[in-house]
Amino acid sequence: MKLLSFHVKGGAIGSYGIATDQGIVDIGARLRDRYPDLKALLAGNAIDAARALCAEHADYSFDDVVYLPVIEHPGKIFGVGMNYQDKRAEFAESNPAPTLFVRFADSQTGHLADVIKPAESQELDYEGELAMVIGRGGKRIRREDAYSHIAGYSCYMDGSVRDWQHAWFTAGKNWPQTGAFGPWLVTPDELPDPHKLVIETFLNGQRVQNDNTGSMIRHIPELVEYISTFSELAPGDVILTGSPGGVGKKRVPQLFLQHGDVIEVRIEKIGTLKNRVVAAEPNCDTRKAA
Amino acid sequence: MKLLSFHVKGGAIGSYGIATDQGIVDIGARLRDRYPDLKALLAGNAIDAARALCAEHADYSFDDVVYLPVIEHPGKIFGVGMNYQDKRAEFAESNPAPTLFVRFADSQTGHLADVIKPAESQELDYEGELAMVIGRGGKRIRREDAYSHIAGYSCYMDGSVRDWQHAWFTAGKNWPQTGAFGPWLVTPDELPDPHKLVIETFLNGQRVQNDNTGSMIRHIPELVEYISTFSELAPGDVILTGSPGGVGKKRVPQLFLQHGDVIEVRIEKIGTLKNRVVAAEPNCDTRKAA
Repeated sequence: MKLLSFHVKGGAIGSYGIATDQGIVDIGARLRDRYPDLKALLAGNAIDAARALCAEHADYSFDDVVYLPVIEHPGKIFGVGMNYQDKRAEFAESNPAPTLFVRFADSQTGHLADVIKPAESQELDYEGELAMVIGRGGKRIRREDAYSHIAGYSCYMDGSVRDWQHAWFTAGKNWPQTGAFGPWLVTPDELPDPHKLVIETFLNGQRVQNDNTGSMIRHIPELVEYISTFSELAPGDVILTGSPGGVGKKRVPQLFLQHGDVIEVRIEKIGTLKNRVVAAEPNCDTRKAA
Repeated sequence: MKLLSFHVKGGAIGSYGIATDQGIVDIGARLRDRYPDLKALLAGNAIDAARALCAEHADYSFDDVVYLPVIEHPGKIFGVGMNYQDKRAEFAESNPAPTLFVRFADSQTGHLADVIKPAESQELDYEGELAMVIGRGGKRIRREDAYSHIAGYSCYMDGSVRDWQHAWFTAGKNWPQTGAFGPWLVTPDELPDPHKLVIETFLNGQRVQNDNTGSMIRHIPELVEYISTFSELAPGDVILTGSPGGVGKKRVPQLFLQHGDVIEVRIEKIGTLKNRVVAAEPNCDTRKAA
């Protein structure tokens, strides 16, 4: 089952639903009273309530909707750095410890939405990643139990502002609309082994990253165990599992995202997350109090 | 004016109030309908509504209450690393870029509450810091406007689990009850220059850090400008401005926090944040799903 967050074009109210061959079944319209959004559905352990509706007639075609980040407001988004060997080699990373950064929810955007290149940067880089979404929370989750805590998987384009990345990555990973998350979450029954998936990134149709999720250095159970040892995980939390090699920063010549570019992250059995890059206006008038 | 978050001993409901010479005026009891917590009071730009009550009779003595983190659930907590010259020298830090990490709200604890030394660590370290709390949100706040966005200042004990800190700090800065925040927020009218304050940390009564907030490499206006360029700030967000030198990790011999220790952060014109260190039980039964 594929679950997504969306709002109908021209409408103001966000909803969530099931992506089927016929279109989108609006689950939010049916269950909103109990579960106002997809995160609440996960927190209510109510995936089965959605599943019971998956044979309903589609309410919308895919063209009718604006995709939102699969989880709009995760409580925590952890990014795992340097988790593919090729990437580690590119960045000459020798520290064996897991490297973790945090992305705030307001840095996200949805499938087919704009990714914004900041006016202050010349180095917006792509990173195609497999994202996992926590379904059942917990502390000190053992690796052998980890899969039972996962609601599903999605594509993520962990857009990275390299010239602000500096040490510890926070400033490079939190610009508005740089983290694209979608199109949907695929539940584990459709994806029994998340470490046997081709993962590719395409820039204007040209493949720029190409690996397999089996190449991760630390696999999903280990990541869940490690993170939940120091920080409690809750339904809707997101863990980005790292990007393969091939990022623009380490190419010769370097290859950064520019206005008008189309960036796609494609993961086998999940689908393709597609975004257009739009350059922010320089000195835009947001330099004011909100 | 000193604003704090608390609950009455034996009571279940959190509240917030003003600390006066006579005790605590319970503002939450009077304004909770409109502003359920201190963060909401800031978001409502309603400091004046609290100030109007500061001559009321105190409802509680300080002994009557349990202190909560000054802001219990900040949307964002940014930590600034390596912002005092002595600290940079200790860590041989040469990168001039601001180093930022993120602390999640659930890693916090209040004044006089326990700080927990994780069972998995032998290296829980102290870092005394000046915390600033955002009152008025904004994007791209100019440094010359920065002070108008600040609701006040507090002490912070940015407890750091060094043996999990690794690269990028996330895992070292997010253990439960390692970030002590209190006792209260002091509004800027009582603290016109936050860069002229003696800042000291005491371990079991012995001074282990001693500097002046004037020694910060990047001052508060620059930090607010820098951070708000890439990530919008909202009322109740917290920025930890970095710790002076003298931390335990870099002492010879090293000096880490142990069960029963008392750690205090004292900042001139703000007060003293005091916490006892308690070692978590090893293999505690929290290694289960929540």
